[in-house]
Amino acid sequence: MTRVHNFNAGPAALPLPALERAQRELLDYDSTGMSIMEHSHRGKAFEAVHDEAISLVRQLLDVPDDYHVLFLQGGASHQFAMVPLNLLPPGKSADYILTGGWSEKAYQEAGRVGTVRIAASTEVDKRYTRIPRQEELQLDPSAAYLHMTTNNTLFGTQWHWLPDTGNVPLVADMSSDFLWRRIDVRRFGLIYAGAQKNIGPSGVTVVLARKDLIDGGRKDVPVIFRYATHAASNSLYNTPPTFAIYLVRNVLAYTVETGGLDEMERRNRHKAGLLYGAIDERPDFFLAPVENESRSFMNVVFRLPTEELEKRFVTEAAREGMVGLAGHRSTGGIRVSIYNAIEVTSVERLVEFMKAFVARA
Amino acid sequence: MTRVHNFNAGPAALPLPALERAQRELLDYDSTGMSIMEHSHRGKAFEAVHDEAISLVRQLLDVPDDYHVLFLQGGASHQFAMVPLNLLPPGKSADYILTGGWSEKAYQEAGRVGTVRIAASTEVDKRYTRIPRQEELQLDPSAAYLHMTTNNTLFGTQWHWLPDTGNVPLVADMSSDFLWRRIDVRRFGLIYAGAQKNIGPSGVTVVLARKDLIDGGRKDVPVIFRYATHAASNSLYNTPPTFAIYLVRNVLAYTVETGGLDEMERRNRHKAGLLYGAIDERPDFFLAPVENESRSFMNVVFRLPTEELEKRFVTEAAREGMVGLAGHRSTGGIRVSIYNAIEVTSVERLVEFMKAFVARA
Ligand SMILES: Cc1ncc(COP(=O)(O)O)c(C=O)c1O
Ligand SMILES: Cc1ncc(COP(=O)(O)O)c(C=O)c1O
Ligand SMILES: [Mg+2]
Ligand SMILES: [Mg+2]
Ligand SMILES: [Mg+2]
Ligand SMILES: [Mg+2]
Repeated sequence: MTRVHNFNAGPAALPLPALERAQRELLDYDSTGMSIMEHSHRGKAFEAVHDEAISLVRQLLDVPDDYHVLFLQGGASHQFAMVPLNLLPPGKSADYILTGGWSEKAYQEAGRVGTVRIAASTEVDKRYTRIPRQEELQLDPSAAYLHMTTNNTLFGTQWHWLPDTGNVPLVADMSSDFLWRRIDVRRFGLIYAGAQKNIGPSGVTVVLARKDLIDGGRKDVPVIFRYATHAASNSLYNTPPTFAIYLVRNVLAYTVETGGLDEMERRNRHKAGLLYGAIDERPDFFLAPVENESRSFMNVVFRLPTEELEKRFVTEAAREGMVGLAGHRSTGGIRVSIYNAIEVTSVERLVEFMKAFVARA
Repeated sequence: MTRVHNFNAGPAALPLPALERAQRELLDYDSTGMSIMEHSHRGKAFEAVHDEAISLVRQLLDVPDDYHVLFLQGGASHQFAMVPLNLLPPGKSADYILTGGWSEKAYQEAGRVGTVRIAASTEVDKRYTRIPRQEELQLDPSAAYLHMTTNNTLFGTQWHWLPDTGNVPLVADMSSDFLWRRIDVRRFGLIYAGAQKNIGPSGVTVVLARKDLIDGGRKDVPVIFRYATHAASNSLYNTPPTFAIYLVRNVLAYTVETGGLDEMERRNRHKAGLLYGAIDERPDFFLAPVENESRSFMNVVFRLPTEELEKRFVTEAAREGMVGLAGHRSTGGIRVSIYNAIEVTSVERLVEFMKAFVARA
């Protein structure tokens, strides 16, 4: 078996040991004579897995006790609707900062639920190449919440500071940089993240939410859409995606084993440093659209002088076992997603390839 | 490795060959050098799996061309809200037939979205022991739809005929008997089923929907909740639960290999016949609450003379490798779930055990 170097943007590569563990126990979980996915979600075996997954998130991020940790279904796109359905009552308005395609979608979906306002946008000609500065934000001090996208998967930008929102709860879509390093959870009212980039397979979304915020959420919406419902039943209101949660457990347990988030941040900074280093060495060939201070540590995007060269780059890299390098269909170019599971050695291989590619181009 | 006889109500047992296939290719799907769950949902590998899963459903049920086959997230409970959000516009009313705990929940959730009406209920003292007869149904001829639960997982009843609804679309929750045998899809406007009983792991829900019905659905709700959104993008509007869909593919491919739904129905009838036979042989000991014509082929429920005996039954069966036999926490008693994946030999073992248990009780 040869595993490739997988730079997919999501669903993305998972740590091999987490997959090997799943493979080993796929037919017989912990000598119970069945797969974890054949266990009842209300039985002891799954309960232990579920509890472990929650406490790993709590441990890794130092989640304060007055925050819930929920595992929900529907993806981040489902949260685009669930956030305003819970936190945006009639008569109030919510602020959105637009920094990419996903924040646009979050904003548009919220607009179908209630009143929304753009607090800032860095869009120029349908492209986003930077994160705004605090002084550019036009915050509504009475907003129900302020929504931001901490890492912009399509455009390769990332927030490296947090807006000061006063008393307005900060809501963050962290789908593509959740757990890439420590954060101060207290700065947020609610965080959500689809698992399929940094911490697991698709099919499960992690939500961290301040208890008072969601307890005070709207009651005039279907029970299944209320955070309070899922919080009150520890994400067991209905059948959770048990196998996806089990895999998140495997990934997070492995993260702790390999040194936790400090080590993760060190590796992630090192990987991004290697790539941006290679790009900056040949600015005539690797065209980086993103402003330096806004560069993402998760999705490194660049263009080559011609689309023809971009195609060759992707094809020739694939031939050498490096896949997932084509930019998003809406942006084109090259995108290298280097989430937590991507090994430093994979990035080193790619950097070598980039150098050789320039040399022969 | 010893696999147990797993009579769980859901998540439930899966066919061993479907799991073995997943195990074999977990680290390297089809020589691509990565797990299917590490593939992009928009790439060729997953596309082939997804298309195969859809066409297996189409093939097994002879789904007419004017029906969509969708794979959604959120479980059947999510459908409880999604059905009225799409099909129940303001000014209309929807009919619900109550035959158990799940149809009650579907009815209550729809009541949070719009106007609902009970077309029939067989509830007596909070219990449901039968399916109504056509003449008991008080159908509203102008209803937006009529909702029914084809198999009642908690109470062990199942519809063995379909109500005549005239022009009113029939919407069915088939979570616990989807694909147990052929059905005439044309009789339904929309069918939904959580995968975790008959066809896969939890985390994915199959929806079959008549195209004109969902194309004409409400447009005043968030895009993510509209069937039309998912239909227009072949369930790829956002990231689907790729691994869960892959497992459904494995299960359905195995179903076809082993003879399709005719063979499945034959086996399911045989298994249920064995169990009801054992029950009826000792009606003084095995107390079957469900009326004969309403008995479920999927969930066989009975009581023993005392709760004490019920506990012993569950414990002693577990000692002999038969698990998942305790009734739902809301009903008590014994429940034997014999979905598609449960082998005839498992049921034979249980029947032997039942006979020995009576003999020594
Ligand atoms: C930042 C961000 N938000 C939201 C989404 C949408 O997630 P999902 O497909 O799980 O709905 C993505 C997916 O790539 C993303 O990167
Ligand atoms: C008939 C029926 N409907 C709905 C549900 C709820 O499904 P979920 O937990 O996937 O929301 C169940 C679960 O057991 C069920 O049996
Ligand atoms: Mg995506
Ligand atoms: Mg973006
Ligand atoms: Mg259940
Ligand atoms: Mg029921």
